[in-house]
Amino acid sequence: MINPWEVKGEIDYHKLVKEFGLKEINNSKLDHLFFKRNIIYAHRDLDRILERIKQKKPFAMMTGLMPSGKFHLGHMMVAQQMIFWQKMGAKIYITVADVESYNARGQSIKESRKIAEEEYIKNYIALGLKPKNCEIYFQSERSQNAKISNTYYRLQNLLARHITYNEFKGIYGEVSPGKLMSSLLQASDMLHPMLLDNVPVIVPVGIDQDPHLRLARDVSKRIKEYKFHTLASTYHKFMPGLGGGKMSSSDPNSYIALTDTPEEAERKIKKYAFSGGQVTLEEHRKLGGNPDVDVSFQYLKLFFEENDKKLETINKNYKSGKLLTGELKQILIEKIKKFLKEHNIKRNKVNIKKFLKR
Amino acid sequence: MINPWEVKGEIDYHKLVKEFGLKEINNSKLDHLFFKRNIIYAHRDLDRILERIKQKKPFAMMTGLMPSGKFHLGHMMVAQQMIFWQKMGAKIYITVADVESYNARGQSIKESRKIAEEEYIKNYIALGLKPKNCEIYFQSERSQNAKISNTYYRLQNLLARHITYNEFKGIYGEVSPGKLMSSLLQASDMLHPMLLDNVPVIVPVGIDQDPHLRLARDVSKRIKEYKFHTLASTYHKFMPGLGGGKMSSSDPNSYIALTDTPEEAERKIKKYAFSGGQVTLEEHRKLGGNPDVDVSFQYLKLFFEENDKKLETINKNYKSGKLLTGELKQILIEKIKKFLKEHNIKRNKVNIKKFLKR
Repeated sequence: MINPWEVKGEIDYHKLVKEFGLKEINNSKLDHLFFKRNIIYAHRDLDRILERIKQKKPFAMMTGLMPSGKFHLGHMMVAQQMIFWQKMGAKIYITVADVESYNARGQSIKESRKIAEEEYIKNYIALGLKPKNCEIYFQSERSQNAKISNTYYRLQNLLARHITYNEFKGIYGEVSPGKLMSSLLQASDMLHPMLLDNVPVIVPVGIDQDPHLRLARDVSKRIKEYKFHTLASTYHKFMPGLGGGKMSSSDPNSYIALTDTPEEAERKIKKYAFSGGQVTLEEHRKLGGNPDVDVSFQYLKLFFEENDKKLETINKNYKSGKLLTGELKQILIEKIKKFLKEHNIKRNKVNIKKFLKR
Repeated sequence: MINPWEVKGEIDYHKLVKEFGLKEINNSKLDHLFFKRNIIYAHRDLDRILERIKQKKPFAMMTGLMPSGKFHLGHMMVAQQMIFWQKMGAKIYITVADVESYNARGQSIKESRKIAEEEYIKNYIALGLKPKNCEIYFQSERSQNAKISNTYYRLQNLLARHITYNEFKGIYGEVSPGKLMSSLLQASDMLHPMLLDNVPVIVPVGIDQDPHLRLARDVSKRIKEYKFHTLASTYHKFMPGLGGGKMSSSDPNSYIALTDTPEEAERKIKKYAFSGGQVTLEEHRKLGGNPDVDVSFQYLKLFFEENDKKLETINKNYKSGKLLTGELKQILIEKIKKFLKEHNIKRNKVNIKKFLKR
């Protein structure tokens, strides 16, 4: 999806929650690291989804993938949420943003398909996404049957009436035909499952995607032809790149890809992972490290140390100076190497055809 | 389709042909009144279509209908061209511009369907359009199968990359999301039959529609993913309303609808048809009338007097003052009353379902 602005530097999430009119998530009982560790920190109308789960009623989760570059740990954050919601009973809709990719970057539809299948979808499956209750489609070809195609594209076309030029400009900065088309298609991506299945939809995003969500929410209320559920959303924290800043597809040293070999991952962590430790051994022993900015610690917290007690021990020892940066990195390296090795085996066994019935 | 500007007053067609870079049509051998009487006066790439006919190769004719108001003689101009090209072997594509109607005027999709079926399609059929080699579809629901739906809407989405904001503004004056969507969909209307059938397409229009055609032509050459035939077009003269100006859906006295009773038509012609005759009987006998501005004569020329010799006699007698305005009107009235009566019988027998297989 489009980035309406760059996310940079340290982020005051409480402030963002206020500014964006979100609700904070605290002490969530949802059984996933991201909820338990407050990595998913805010929401809009999550309650409605939880109510559906309680009542054992169907609902859907929708997300998109931009077919570009390598599939890395940043993408895994969304993938894990897909898998979580699928386990919770959601039907999963995943759109491959090949139209957006074409209009924004001139990437051919064919190239997008290749990247989506090889890099993204295969990794989703290897991570645990199941074909049942899962629909992956391409924006350029919302196929299967005419009813689905027509619903999807008709909605895109009709939504146009309900957004003004100035509103669009306010969100996207500029108005180009390509961008306008893509954003309306994205709104249809999020809303059309409600028409197909008459279910509420939840979209997990980073805060930078919120303007798109708000647009879709607002527009869905203006269009009188259809009665939509209110679009629900959750907001996960920004996952730092290896250097502590943003992951960049054009800089392979800013991320660990799920196709990196264990050795590559080790090299990258040793060389590039931003450390919260002190400059000298003496200072570190004396003053301790800062796990909150330490990328290795953050990665353990996000994915690789699921045991809360163990994570807390690492946290404590790093803060006290007992655990050195090199040792902390080594903990992560062992975990990631094991993960990449196992993941690679799983990915090689993936049968993508089950997911892309056309 | 959208009117980029109002057509008003007398029109210098030679000048328009030059300004728009069209080619004039003279002494056409095509067997239709409109060609023989130079009512279709200009074209772009008609030769390519004629070549296809000569070689007995398939081609398509595409047009759209805006589901609004009553079906009147102005609409019959296009309908007759559909029927002509169908006889010449063209596959006929007719799009119901319900998306445009929704975005431009807020008319519901349901209402558009009703008007399209009752007012337009039924009349096309009664006039002689055949179900074979004819595809009528709705912009909001390019149905039948997923391949067609996807082709049509994908093209709309991909075309967006190939038109700039300023180019769009130059053609449409303003850029609103609704207008942009509609115009891209219209371009896809014209171009997508080339993708479905790999055939050239001819679009019969009035000159006011030419900016849309040029847009579709230009864009089709820029998009590298597909190899399009060059869009061909013909240009028919503006058909005057009863008062000599434009026909207006909101003014029933400006047109004769095909659902008007013979008596209504008679009344309208007597009361409203603009006359090229002189003010007094004496002056008319002395100076004669002007058939070129006389609406009754024009209607005879366009539709109701197919016999060239008879038309020429009327022309001559009117010019000389031998034929009075009342008498000229009476000739038209007799013809139109007969036509409306017969047409009404045909329309009541129409089975629209054969045309709208979904």
